[in-house]
Amino acid sequence: MEYLKLNKSRHAVKHFDGTKIPTVDVKQIISTAALAPSANNLQPWLFTIVESKERRELLIDETEPGNVSQLEEAGAIIVLFSDTAIAERSQEIAQKFGNMMAPEMMQRFNKIYPERFAKFTPKYTTDFLALNAGIVTMNLVLAIKDFGYESNIILGFHRTDHVNEALDVPLRYRPELIITLGRSNEKGEPHFGLPQDMLVKIV
Amino acid sequence: MEYLKLNKSRHAVKHFDGTKIPTVDVKQIISTAALAPSANNLQPWLFTIVESKERRELLIDETEPGNVSQLEEAGAIIVLFSDTAIAERSQEIAQKFGNMMAPEMMQRFNKIYPERFAKFTPKYTTDFLALNAGIVTMNLVLAIKDFGYESNIILGFHRTDHVNEALDVPLRYRPELIITLGRSNEKGEPHFGLPQDMLVKIV
Repeated sequence: MEYLKLNKSRHAVKHFDGTKIPTVDVKQIISTAALAPSANNLQPWLFTIVESKERRELLIDETEPGNVSQLEEAGAIIVLFSDTAIAERSQEIAQKFGNMMAPEMMQRFNKIYPERFAKFTPKYTTDFLALNAGIVTMNLVLAIKDFGYESNIILGFHRTDHVNEALDVPLRYRPELIITLGRSNEKGEPHFGLPQDMLVKIV
Repeated sequence: MEYLKLNKSRHAVKHFDGTKIPTVDVKQIISTAALAPSANNLQPWLFTIVESKERRELLIDETEPGNVSQLEEAGAIIVLFSDTAIAERSQEIAQKFGNMMAPEMMQRFNKIYPERFAKFTPKYTTDFLALNAGIVTMNLVLAIKDFGYESNIILGFHRTDHVNEALDVPLRYRPELIITLGRSNEKGEPHFGLPQDMLVKIV
């Protein structure tokens, strides 16, 4: 779909008809979303697709009551985690894929980025991860809509390692957002957009 | 442009030809980006367009050396700030625009959200703001490309209130990211995409 039309027609939808979205579609949607940029191209993301009914129930236990029915009705659920082990991730990328990179780029992943990340404060690190998670999430909801599905982004859950336990995800990853998607008769409504004088400043 | 084509052709570009982008275009791009979703529809964003040469110089003083030339060459610079005063923002929205809302929604902005935000920990608040900033930034770089310009997202600057001073932005806002945009002969290159086994887990 045309980007502008897609962007204008994508709204949060919180009721789904329960039809399961094929895993192959969900994977394709994630590949499209992962074309998003990330800082130092670290792609510090883990998209966890919650397929099993038991895992879905355990995840529901970690969400706020208002979000339970949409998690039950969703045709697929993605829980986006960030990889908090950014220095290790960088070196893993160098080790696994260095032979496909220019030597200069391999050196960056192997040494320059890890040294940079080691100097990050905890505050800087948490913002770094959340910014990258937000970036890919926007592309994810656009990709979902482009595939003909509706979606919603959920921040209202307990963002703790109980979510890791529920989904069998190692503790180096931290949960960021839940994205529900599915077929729906609802198309959502445009949000109340603030006027430019509250959003834009020219200096 | 078709979303998939747009998404696949958008790459980071760090060299611009110096042509100024008309402010009217930058404003239109920001309006398009601001169609992005945000938590509780708070739209906690301030897009600061850096027009004056003096302000641009002051901003350059806050960036890492590797980013200086692109800030000099860019056809426009947007510094995205988050509004850290989320409870106040929520009540301001209720006061200014409550007459355009259903009573239930006005009540949310006026009371329910501020009470919720008051319980946020500092860690939760900083993640909340960074996630929302990331979400709108992805839409911003897509909107820029759709307008026919190239862009880059810069995290490499001193994210302190010196940036507020440089740009005359009140301290309730915190700097998140710098987005450079402009005309360029370069179209950038696809990033090295990690394989799905590093990005996707099915449970």
